[in-house]
This record gives sequence, structure tokens and C-alpha cells, in this order.
Amino acid sequence: MNSENFSLSEKIVSTSYVRQGSQARRSHEQLIRLLLEQGKCPEEGWSESTVELFLSELAVMDSNNFLGNCGVGEREGRVASSLVARRHYRFKLIHGIGRSGDIAAVQPKAAGSSLLNKLTNSVVLDILKLSGVVASCFVVPLATGMSLTLCFLTLRHRRPKARYIIWPRIDQKSCFKAMITAGFEPVVVENVLEGDELRTDLEAVERKIEELGAENILCVHSTTSCFAPRVPDRLEELSILCAKQNIPHIVNNAYGVQSSKCMHLIQQGARVGRIDAFVQSLDKNFMVPVGGAIIAGFDESFVQEISQMYPGRASASPSLDVLITLLTLGASGYKKLLSERKAESDGAVTQLGSMLFTRQVSGARVIPLGKEQTIGGHTFRGFMSHSDAYPCPYLNAASAVGITREDVTLCMKRLDKCLKTLKKEKNVAKSSSPVLPPCQEDTTGE
Amino acid sequence: MNSENFSLSEKIVSTSYVRQGSQARRSHEQLIRLLLEQGKCPEEGWSESTVELFLSELAVMDSNNFLGNCGVGEREGRVASSLVARRHYRFKLIHGIGRSGDIAAVQPKAAGSSLLNKLTNSVVLDILKLSGVVASCFVVPLATGMSLTLCFLTLRHRRPKARYIIWPRIDQKSCFKAMITAGFEPVVVENVLEGDELRTDLEAVERKIEELGAENILCVHSTTSCFAPRVPDRLEELSILCAKQNIPHIVNNAYGVQSSKCMHLIQQGARVGRIDAFVQSLDKNFMVPVGGAIIAGFDESFVQEISQMYPGRASASPSLDVLITLLTLGASGYKKLLSERKAESDGAVTQLGSMLFTRQVSGARVIPLGKEQTIGGHTFRGFMSHSDAYPCPYLNAASAVGITREDVTLCMKRLDKCLKTLKKEKNVAKSSSPVLPPCQEDTTGE
Amino acid sequence: MNSENFSLSEKIVSTSYVRQGSQARRSHEQLIRLLLEQGKCPEEGWSESTVELFLSELAVMDSNNFLGNCGVGEREGRVASSLVARRHYRFKLIHGIGRSGDIAAVQPKAAGSSLLNKLTNSVVLDILKLSGVVASCFVVPLATGMSLTLCFLTLRHRRPKARYIIWPRIDQKSCFKAMITAGFEPVVVENVLEGDELRTDLEAVERKIEELGAENILCVHSTTSCFAPRVPDRLEELSILCAKQNIPHIVNNAYGVQSSKCMHLIQQGARVGRIDAFVQSLDKNFMVPVGGAIIAGFDESFVQEISQMYPGRASASPSLDVLITLLTLGASGYKKLLSERKAESDGAVTQLGSMLFTRQVSGARVIPLGKEQTIGGHTFRGFMSHSDAYPCPYLNAASAVGITREDVTLCMKRLDKCLKTLKKEKNVAKSSSPVLPPCQEDTTGE
Amino acid sequence: MNSENFSLSEKIVSTSYVRQGSQARRSHEQLIRLLLEQGKCPEEGWSESTVELFLSELAVMDSNNFLGNCGVGEREGRVASSLVARRHYRFKLIHGIGRSGDIAAVQPKAAGSSLLNKLTNSVVLDILKLSGVVASCFVVPLATGMSLTLCFLTLRHRRPKARYIIWPRIDQKSCFKAMITAGFEPVVVENVLEGDELRTDLEAVERKIEELGAENILCVHSTTSCFAPRVPDRLEELSILCAKQNIPHIVNNAYGVQSSKCMHLIQQGARVGRIDAFVQSLDKNFMVPVGGAIIAGFDESFVQEISQMYPGRASASPSLDVLITLLTLGASGYKKLLSERKAESDGAVTQLGSMLFTRQVSGARVIPLGKEQTIGGHTFRGFMSHSDAYPCPYLNAASAVGITREDVTLCMKRLDKCLKTLKKEKNVAKSSSPVLPPCQEDTTGE
Repeated sequence: MNSENFSLSEKIVSTSYVRQGSQARRSHEQLIRLLLEQGKCPEEGWSESTVELFLSELAVMDSNNFLGNCGVGEREGRVASSLVARRHYRFKLIHGIGRSGDIAAVQPKAAGSSLLNKLTNSVVLDILKLSGVVASCFVVPLATGMSLTLCFLTLRHRRPKARYIIWPRIDQKSCFKAMITAGFEPVVVENVLEGDELRTDLEAVERKIEELGAENILCVHSTTSCFAPRVPDRLEELSILCAKQNIPHIVNNAYGVQSSKCMHLIQQGARVGRIDAFVQSLDKNFMVPVGGAIIAGFDESFVQEISQMYPGRASASPSLDVLITLLTLGASGYKKLLSERKAESDGAVTQLGSMLFTRQVSGARVIPLGKEQTIGGHTFRGFMSHSDAYPCPYLNAASAVGITREDVTLCMKRLDKCLKTLKKEKNVAKSSSPVLPPCQEDTTGE
Repeated sequence: MNSENFSLSEKIVSTSYVRQGSQARRSHEQLIRLLLEQGKCPEEGWSESTVELFLSELAVMDSNNFLGNCGVGEREGRVASSLVARRHYRFKLIHGIGRSGDIAAVQPKAAGSSLLNKLTNSVVLDILKLSGVVASCFVVPLATGMSLTLCFLTLRHRRPKARYIIWPRIDQKSCFKAMITAGFEPVVVENVLEGDELRTDLEAVERKIEELGAENILCVHSTTSCFAPRVPDRLEELSILCAKQNIPHIVNNAYGVQSSKCMHLIQQGARVGRIDAFVQSLDKNFMVPVGGAIIAGFDESFVQEISQMYPGRASASPSLDVLITLLTLGASGYKKLLSERKAESDGAVTQLGSMLFTRQVSGARVIPLGKEQTIGGHTFRGFMSHSDAYPCPYLNAASAVGITREDVTLCMKRLDKCLKTLKKEKNVAKSSSPVLPPCQEDTTGE
Repeated sequence: MNSENFSLSEKIVSTSYVRQGSQARRSHEQLIRLLLEQGKCPEEGWSESTVELFLSELAVMDSNNFLGNCGVGEREGRVASSLVARRHYRFKLIHGIGRSGDIAAVQPKAAGSSLLNKLTNSVVLDILKLSGVVASCFVVPLATGMSLTLCFLTLRHRRPKARYIIWPRIDQKSCFKAMITAGFEPVVVENVLEGDELRTDLEAVERKIEELGAENILCVHSTTSCFAPRVPDRLEELSILCAKQNIPHIVNNAYGVQSSKCMHLIQQGARVGRIDAFVQSLDKNFMVPVGGAIIAGFDESFVQEISQMYPGRASASPSLDVLITLLTLGASGYKKLLSERKAESDGAVTQLGSMLFTRQVSGARVIPLGKEQTIGGHTFRGFMSHSDAYPCPYLNAASAVGITREDVTLCMKRLDKCLKTLKKEKNVAKSSSPVLPPCQEDTTGE
Repeated sequence: MNSENFSLSEKIVSTSYVRQGSQARRSHEQLIRLLLEQGKCPEEGWSESTVELFLSELAVMDSNNFLGNCGVGEREGRVASSLVARRHYRFKLIHGIGRSGDIAAVQPKAAGSSLLNKLTNSVVLDILKLSGVVASCFVVPLATGMSLTLCFLTLRHRRPKARYIIWPRIDQKSCFKAMITAGFEPVVVENVLEGDELRTDLEAVERKIEELGAENILCVHSTTSCFAPRVPDRLEELSILCAKQNIPHIVNNAYGVQSSKCMHLIQQGARVGRIDAFVQSLDKNFMVPVGGAIIAGFDESFVQEISQMYPGRASASPSLDVLITLLTLGASGYKKLLSERKAESDGAVTQLGSMLFTRQVSGARVIPLGKEQTIGGHTFRGFMSHSDAYPCPYLNAASAVGITREDVTLCMKRLDKCLKTLKKEKNVAKSSSPVLPPCQEDTTGE
């Protein structure tokens, strides 16, 4: 309430009580002020009350042309169902975010939605900076694959002649399809086996560039996210190569915000060479529903070029989800989640001493040998193993943000039980059938 | 948001958009201002947005000793479940309303709850005044029966010797029990049959007073609500009698706010004679859940005496429900509901030309002959017919606020069908078994 | 969904996925089955999903006469505002709980509300049994004071001649007013000072009984809840005395469920002597909003007599709040809360070694000397100290369920600061002005 | 609840009441059964209770791997914030809809989300069929512009050599950018002026095709939505032309579902010629927040090809919104909204007899002369007038679904006032400054 209404309240209940009340209000306002002033994720998470108060304030700012001016009563921005209006905090989100010209642009008559959009981008950027990456970014209501597509489509305007994208193989459908959908020909570069790890074959990448001609290559499309035994791409070396050859470099960093290692690789790549944009999933890194991504880069003007490439307005729903989540968690809560994830993974390593959790893995799944898969006309041999011929079948398991010690323990118990059962039945070593633990979850984005 | 935060917002999105937003907010504030200033039910109903904004503002005023002062984060006034906190709009309703000294009193550290309580009483009073009744009142989280008990207990302190309550018979359990519970002996005065109507037997009331001695009588306890063929008590005559004999007069007006006739009777009674308090149900008159009542009277000091009789704090839930409802409906919406109810009843009368809907009835039920019922040691013959020996069995049906033309039509259709079926089977006229229409609803408070 | 709808779903998405879904549903149903079967508080708390699913199932059971039978669409049991309907989980709570005859009775046409009511009473009883008290009980939508009034009013019917209630002094308004409101004369028995503790003066109680005559005494009204330096009443001795003298015994156990000591006193009292009923607050013991209480006793028929004394139906809101809370916490969660409270109090004792936290205290307040207070015509000298002449002024502080170590620490820091400030200014020892720590909260029910 | 739990309930409250309850439940199940069986929008809208019961049932089906199998308690599909979980009905929407292979595909372990997705597509299709269009369709969480881009990207794989898109000019940024973003060169065909209407210049289209060569043209991109004085494109003639020339034909039908005229044009075009896909906005046609579209076509395999082009999973949020909306409105409610919109427009026509509302207009805005705008390198003269040189400036106004008579009246009043004010000040006829009515809303998707 404004000061006038507080004064009126003092006539109804006593002045001192109302002052306490107005002071209480001020403490919420204070938190909001800090957010508006600094545009940073608050160190301590807000209470749900403060979050909801803030959102209702923003929402109220959206509806000006109705309640005040037209006198016809609020109409929820012409949302037909009150269940839908409530779900969107009565935001006049019928306007969504952005304008035709730029998905990050401010909207007329929707000051609240515009603030929501700007603040979300700013808070998310702050989180990226926590891991030392100094970049520019925006949230887009597209899943990771489609966001990569948008990056490729933007590059097309800079390199109209280019037809190829150089792509160190990773067996995940969406990122492969992202290139196909954008209308380019993916040039798959097989990985090399070092120990039990699959790593970027830098020489093969170089050979391909030479073979096809740098000017015909849209970009190098590398990946930080790994599915053991495939490890993150050699970002530094690829970045140097791209800089030298004057080829754009787009990084699929789908799971990477939650991993200090991935973020470090990106920062390093950008420092020593060239990274044009890197894309991360909202759901995988921020525990929100599927459907949003962050597109980031080190050159603000290129990031803006991408945001201006999106034709029309877009759903504010993913922005809303990630803003609520980050305000509720606070920077400290988010860092705590990350360190828990790390502890669980690392703990598992120590505890098990096995290949299962030797590295930052994502998604529990069994990788048999010799599976073939055709996507967009391209046939992958040994699909899911990121290699035409990985030496043995194996199983890998997820350790994404939000995982707890209990999850790991339980999963191990069940796996153990499965393996014992199988051993009894036959001989597990010779079995090629999948060994799926009951609590597996496929978080690979497939 | 306060003006400082609006200014900061102008640095994020453009000044003119933020001004539109702040203007939008002001239009909500304006509605709230009017409410605080006048304490009246707004003529036009508020949008749900405005209602929720207002409630969240009030709730925020309650939590001062937590978020601001103690720095330990908001804890919802120590409400354990977030589902419960949300249900109560995060009000620190753990404090409820009132204090030990007075259920209508202001609470320290709960400016929001206190405002809620005061405003509810004020808005409800405004609604009573719509029907011309100028009184003082407060909302109490007790159903009608218990509220009557509270009135009787209050009177005991004024008339410590009194043991009897004079009560023109109405066959409804709660109001009878209200007297028993308060520790008094109800003196049941049978009604007289005039035509097919049962009316107050004034002479019998006078005889009883003379017989028992006015000083031994706590009060006359009359009833406006009727269940045809019992009509409202002769309030004017009873009020004159009470004034003359110096006996308090408490009116059970359970369903009466929605009826201009009942309200008129009360206003007249108070004008020409004596009415100390009249009690009305929240659920029956305002379409909210069961559990609250309005205790009203014409002497502010006596009303306050009752409110001070309640030992301790009380639930704010019924106050919250009725405030939300009245703000949402607005005075015009409430009047519209009432006139619809009236139209439906009257329309039914015309249409049917039968005894079923000849008067303002409440609760569809079949009244057989000769039923006996014992309550609190008192045996009623012909229970439910308000008379020892009503001449014939009959059926009556509800026409409470919220009823629609469709309800009436459908109910009649089904009744017709039932009657036809019964006729076929046997002979309805001789049947003494209940004829319950499928859409009946017992709204008699039993 | 029922099995037919699951089958239909299998035609839309694959059979195996739907079976997983139906299995998921079954796991919720399983929890609900246990609750219905055993009527006990689940050991592990339910997720909010399960709680909401359960409530929506119950609510759906209420609305039968609308959606199905009358074909006029659901109308929320004639609740006018959708905000209100939502707040009550769309229960047809317009019916509330109970019937005129009995607040614990089942309602026709409101199977869901009836189940809710029965289950709440059953789950709450289970919680009482956790502390070894084997009793009968019901939840009533009245705060503690009014619940005590209801007990006294019930006893009046058993002892029509009685005028007095013997009451070992405790300086809390509501419980004193409860006797006045019920129409009885409180006979205040001053406490005796043993060390720095104030305890029941048993001999004085006996003298009063002899003086007034047992048949003129409605009951002894004792208190477990303490406000240091007043300690819980000598329940065992009072119970024996009441049994011997054939006088009913009502215990004000407002804060007691959370204290194993209070519960033990009650169980012992009932074992060796006579306790007719004991009353506990919902908000103080279960972290729900103000407005409900549990009335319990060892004689089921007397407990039922009380529940039948309530005239009419009543609000289901407090029952709903406590059921949600207990299902969410589970028995283990509730026990954990209690043990945290205990640890915090005890820890404070050790840490401070001072009189401040030497015993289980409730409500932080400064007790000056010589304050006079008149309630219902009775003047208390030295009000708030439970004694006409306590030797020194003091400060006590709350340690209710929900308190955390942080609260205690912070409160101590601030108290320390206050005291230092005061010392500087003058001389604290001579100061008679109140020393209110900024984070104090008056949880004494006043 | 399942039958076992209903049986258990009968032991707690009476059998007959529980049966009423279970019958009530069955009436909701019955509505759900019809939906699952027929996959159609229910004729009558569901109550919010039924909608929420249905959604909670679906959501419960999603969480199987947590509550039941792993025993670690439900974790909201690893959604960090309970506010976010609640906003998404606790759906495990972290999985969103679709799979990498196909956005319309069923997801493992998310039977509820999968059902939601399938049913939404099916119900939306049913609505399209209401207007006589027999097609295949799916909902995509992309706004209209991006959905068009997806169509163009899909066509690229069929016509790898094509570089141009023929586009009869309409001055709306998003649809123009959609072509640029997809990497194609828009070939703008100016409209011809017939009377005061701007219409497709068919001859110019034919000339362009001849000039560029059919095989170099990706598609013709036409528009049904009009912004007066531009009228819908000549769909029939364009469709015939496309069929003859073997050129794909994509229709931007952004606002068209609400207009029987637009839908008829599409059905006709497909009957006599070729329409490959037509795209409509969810927000503009179904009163939901911005961010979703329906991609539809007459060849199921091509529609599926588009849905398979989307790389990865996607947000289920727009699907959820449109499903809630259509279930709540019902087919009859939706048709009523449409007819109201029509009545309002037509009424306005009659009433004003002016050029302002002579046709189905969308978005109130003033169109000055001579404005230049450059988008994606292409400069439009006379931007916003769909013509290089429209003869005069004008104003047009929105009449989208949800508009009411009051809106129109009020808008006219204010416009009138503005015009009068301007006249006084100067001479309106000579003024070239924009005349913006205060209640204008730009709903053009810009």
C-alpha cells in the first residue's frame, strides 16, 4: 500500500501497529530494491512471500490499459480461463516477452513483463559470472536443440556460402538434429580413445577444415557436456584453431552451468581463442521444467544479433520459472545445490572406486555394442557410445543438480541386486542385454 | 512497489512504460483507499487481482517481527505447512483476531490481521445498512447457535437471577440447543394456526411472562427465519412487550439478511420496542462456508459487551471469507444476488400457484405428521412442523441466496416426476413416506 | 482415474507407460488406504502432492447433489467467490462439520467433509497417544478459552446447583474469562513460593472446598502450561483430591501436547485420580492459525456429551489445517519438531546458566512488580507474576514448538545489547521500566 | 480414490453417504472418459474442479519413478521451487513434451505429460474441424513467426536448391522475419488497390515465379489475417497457382481460427489447389498467453515431418494453457466467444457506417503516410499500410476474440473525444500526428 493508504489505516488500527506493518512491508521492498539496483541474484534466497509479492507487483504493472484507463474492469489481458491467469500470476503475459524486432526488447504497455524479462536475463548472467565466465546472455523459450538451431541460422547471415558444420561426435540426438534443422550438413568427426576415454580428435578436425575449405564451414560445434566415457571436447585447442582459421565456434554447454569444470573450459577457450556462443539448458541446470535455454556469448553484439533473429514475441513462461527459482534459492542456495551434486559424485567415486562414477556423468543408461542409428540421413555405428567401436559395453548414470546421497546409495543397491540376479540366471559377463537399474532416469534430453 | 523501486525500474525499462505501470498500480490503490477511507462495501465488485493484491498487502503487514527485525527469514508465523500458510494468504493468522479482552480488539504485531478484522466488521455493517437497519455489529467465528449462546451468556451477567428463556416454537435444533447450552430453561410457546400459517401466540407469551415473573426471564428469543407454514415471529408486538416488561429480546435472524422483509421486521421492532441483539449466519446470507455469524444490535455498548465476553482470540477464517466475498461481489453484486433470489421465489409462486412456494421458504424437506423428537430433555410433538398438531403433512423447499431459475425449474420437474411415479404405484394422498426430490438440499442448519 | 479411463489412455499413449502411471497413482492410493484403515498419523509425512490429491478426492465426494444429479454444473456448494472456494479446496464446506445434534457427527450429502472430520479427530487422537495419553478427543473450531467455557457449560447440566470453580491462579486472561463467560464464579487460589518457583497451594484448595461445600463447586480448573516462575499445577494431588471429593476436574493444557512433561502429568492424574477433560490449543501445539482446540478426556461418554453440547454445525477450517499439517509432517516429523524444541530449551539452559531459561517457558515478557489488573470484576495484584507478591521483577521468554537454535541465539544477543545499553544510561538494577527484547513474541494467548 | 478406499471409507462414515460420494466422483470420471474416448473438445465446458481433478490425475501419472519405486519421497521431478512445481500442476514437466525424434511423440516415464500432449493436439484439431477444416495438426511451443520458420526449414530438405519465398506484402514484422531467420530471401509482392482495399496482385505473383523459376522458390507464403485496408490474400487463386507450378504453399493464418471467413478460405484453397501448412497463433485465437502456435496441414505425413524437425523436447506450458482453456470453455463456450466477437464487429460496422470497422480488423493503430522501415535489409516504403503509397492516412482497431460491446462503445467514445479535442486545437484534417485513442491495444504481434 502507498503512504496514503498507510495513513488511512492508522485511523482504523493504532498508529504504532500500522508503522510496524509498514516497516514489515519496507523489508520486502528493500530486497526488491537491491534486485532492481544491482540486477544480481540475491545472495540469500527470498521467502516465497517476497517472491509472490514481487511477482504480483510486476503483474499489476502490466494491466494498465485495462483497470485504470478503460474502466471496464480487469480482464486478465483477455485470458479466457482463470486457471490459466492464475498459473501465470495474472501477468498480462498474453504479450509474452520481446517484440518482433528483438526477443530481449522491452514491450510497450507491459512494463511488468518487460521488467521480468530484463531481470531474468540479468540474474541469469550473474549466475554465469559466479563460475568466472564474463559474458552476455539472454533466456530464450526454446529447448537447447532449437536454441543451437537459432545460433546456426544467425551465423548463416554472416557466412551465406557456408554449408558445413564441423562436429566432434557426441551421441545425443537433439544437438545433431539442430544442425540438420538449420539446413546444414553436419561433418561428424570421430573421437579418439585415450585410455578408456573418448576425446576430441583435433587432427581430424583440422584435416576436415582443410579438406572442405574454411569459408564453406559455418562453424565448429563442440560439446562440454559429457557422457562418460566421452569427455568434454578440447575447448581450448578448438577455440585456438577456430580463431586461427577465422571460423565461428558454437559450444553446446547443455549441462554445463552446474559444472565448474565446463564453465572453466569455456572461459579458457574464449580467453585463448574464439567462442562465439554457448548454449545451456534451463531445466538441466536450474531444476525448472523443460523448454528454455540460455544463449550466451562474449561478444555482446553477436548475442544481440541472435536475440534479434527470433521472429516475434515469445513465451515468458521459462523466464518466469527460472527467475522464481533463482530468487527462491539465492546465490548461496544455488551454490549449495552445486556443491552437493559435486560431493555426491565425488563421494561416489571414492566409495565405489569403479569406472561407474569416474567422471561427471549424466543419465543412467546401458551402452551395448554395435547399435546402429540413422538420424537425418546420417548413420551412426555404435550409437550411444560416441564411437564407431568402443571396446566394451558399459553403463553410465546421472549425477545432475539436485541429486542426493540417498539417490546414489539406493541406485547402487539396486544395481547390485540386478547384477547378482543376472549372474545367477546366466553369466552376466557374456550377456549383452541391457541392465537397467530400476531408478534410472534418462536425463540426456532425448 | 514504492516510488524508489519504480524509479529504479525506469533505469531497466523505459520511463514511460514504468509510469504506465505505476499508474496501473495506483488504480488498485485507489480502490483500496476508498475502502480504508469509507469502510464500506465497494459499489462495484473488485477484480480478483485487486482482492489478492490487497490481501497480500495486509498479510505482509503482519509479519514484521520476523523478516525485518529478527533477520532469521520469514517463517509464516510459525505455520508448519506451506499448504496451510497459502490457504490463509500467508497471514500471520496464527494470531487470529481479537485479544483476550475483546474479540473485536486490535492485536499488537498483527496490524494486517487487525485491519482485516476491523474492515470486515465495517463492510458487513454497511451491508446491514443497505436494508435500512442501523446497528452495530461484529463477525464472530461461531455458527449461529453458538453465537446465540454467547448472547445468552452475556445477558446472564445483567440478569443473574434469570433462569428462563421465552421461545416461540420453531422446529430447528440449533437455536433450541443454544439455550440449553447456555444453561437456561427454554419455555416453549406453541404457535397458533391462522389459515394455513403458524404464527406467534402473543397472548401465550404474555401469560408465560406473568406466570414466571419478568425478573426470572433472561430474554425473549424470537425468530425471523421461517420454514413455511411457520411465518416470521410478530417482531413488533414482541418488541413492544419486551420494552414494557423490561425483558431483553434476542432475535434469531439466521437467514434474514438476504430478506428485505426480515430486515424490515427487525428495524421496526427496534423502533417501536426493544431488540437487544440479532444474530445472522454468514454462510446462509453470504455464500461462504459454515462457521461464522454476525452478532448485531442497536446499542453499541451491549454489542461490545458481547464481543468482550468471548474468552480469547479466535479464528480469522470466517472474516476472511466474508470479506473476500463482499469485495468480489460489491454492493451491487450482492444486491443482484438478492433480487435474483427474490425473483426466483416470487416467480415460482406465480408459476405454481400452490402451497409449495407460497412464502419465503428455506430447505426442501417433507414434513410428515406426528413425529416426536426429544432435545435437551424437552419432547416436541409434531417435530419439524413447528406445531403439536399441524393439520396435514407437507413438503417445503429452499430458496436461499444463490438459487437460480434453472434450479427451481429442474426441482419442479423432478418433483413432478416423483409424484407421478408415486401415484402410479399407490395413492400418493395416503402415503406417509417422505417424498424427497433428488436435488433437495437441507439448508436448515441442522 | 478409474480403470476404465486407464484402459482408454492405453489407446492414446502406450500400454506400458500408462501402467507405470497407474502404478504411480496406486502408490498414492496406498498411503491413503493406510490412513483410512488405521486412522493414524502416517509415520512419514506425505508429499504435498499426496495431500492435495487426497483433499481433492474428499472434496469431490461432497458435491454429489450438484454435478451428477441436478445437471446444472458444479456450483461450489453455493460459494459465491472462487477465491473462497479455492481456499477451502472446493470442499462443499458450506456444510461445515457436525450436525445440530453433535459436532462430531456425520453429515448427510457431505461424505467428504464427514470423512475429513472423522479422520482429523482420529489422527489427532493418535498424536495424543504418542505421549502415552490414552483418551478420547475431538477437534472443535473454538479457541482454548471458549473450549473451556464449553466444558464448564456441559458440567452445569450434571451439577445444576454448582456456582464456583476452584482455580489455582495463573495470570492469563482467556482461561479466567472462560469461567466468567460460562457464568461461574472463579475462586482464585494463590500459589505458594517454593525457592523461586510458584506452585499449587494444595492445602488452600482443600480449605476452599471445605468452606464452599463440594456440591457447590462445578469443578477444579487446573493448568499444566506454565509461565516461569509459575510451574505446572500439582495435577496428581489435585486429581486425587477431586476423586475423593467427587468434584469434576478440568485441565487447561493449552500448550501441553508439545511437552512430554505436561502429557505425563495428565496421564498420571487420570491414573491415580480424576480428570474429566483437558483442553489444548491447536495453534500452540500444531503450528496452525489460531482458532481451534482439542477437547479430550478419559471417559468417552463425557467427551461425547461435550461434543453434543455445541449447538449447530461448525467451521471445518481448523480441522482442515491440522489434518494437512499432520499428514505433511508425519508422526516422525512432528516428533522431530518436539525434540528440536526441547533441545533448544535445554541447550539454552546449559548455555546461559541463568534464571531466564531454567524451565519450559512460553512467551517473552517482562514482569514488573505490583501491576494490578481487573478482569470480570476480580482484581489481581501483581498481575502477570501469578502471585500477589513475587519477590523480584523478571523477564521470561518463549520456547514453543517451531523455535530454532538461531532464534534463541539471536534473542540472547539482542537482550544482551539492550541490557548493556540500559546499564550505560542509568543503572539497570534500579530501573523498573520494561526491558523488551526486539524479537520477543507474546505467545501467551492474550 | 479406488474402490478399496471407498470401502474403507464406508466404515468411517455411513455406506450410503460414501456411495453418494463415489457417485459424485463417477460423474467427473464420466466427463474424463468421454474426452479420452473421443479426443474431442467437450460440448459443454467443464467446471474448474473437473479440470483440476483431471490435471492432478495426469500429473500423478508422471511421477512413477519417484514416489513408488525409489522410496525417496516425491521430488517434483527435481523442480527446485515449490512455486514453480505448483504453477505446473506438479507435472513432472521437467520432461516437457515430445522426444528428440518428434515433438509430438510419447515420452517414456511421463505417461501424464504424454497424454496431455496427445489430448491437446486432438482437442485443438477438433476445434479446427468445427470450422469445416479437415486437417492434421499439432501444438508447438513457438510463437507464430518461429513456427513459420520451422515450416520453411522443413521445406528446405525437400527443395534444397530453393532460395526465394514469394510473399504478398503484409506489414507485420514477425512473418517477414520468419523468412529471413530461416535463411531465405523474401520476394515481396506489392498489393493492388481495389476501391479502398488492398488485395493480392496475382499477376505479379505469377510474373515473379516465371522470373525466378519455380524450382528456386521454396514456397508461396500467404496471409489470411488482415489489417484493414489490406484484406486476406486470394487463397484460392494462389493455391491453384501453387498446385499448377508445383510450389509449396504456406499460409500465415495467425488470427484466423476465430474467423469463419479465414477458415473457409483455407478449406477452399486446399480443395481446389495446394496448401502445405497453415499456422495459427494460440494466444490470438484461444485467449492464452503468448508463446504457442498450431501448425496444421492437409497431408498428415508433411505435418509429421515438421513435428519431427523440432530438435529436442519442448515446453508443455502452451499445451497446458490451451487444454485448460478449451476444457473450461467447451466447444459451445468457444463458439459463443466467436459469435460475440463477430456481433461486436458487425454491430460496430452498422453503427459507425465508416471505414474504421468496415472489415475484420486487428489492432488499433494509426497509419500515417510515408513511413519507411527496414527489416532484414529490405526497406518498406509506406510501412504499416501494406502498400508503397496508400492514398490516405487512417486508423484501424482490433476486434479480436474476447472483445465486448462495452469495449467497442468505450473506444468509440474516447476516439470521438480525441478527435474533437484535436479539431479545437488545430485542424485535424491537416494534422499528420498520430491520433491514439487511450484504450488502443496493439495486438498485431509486433
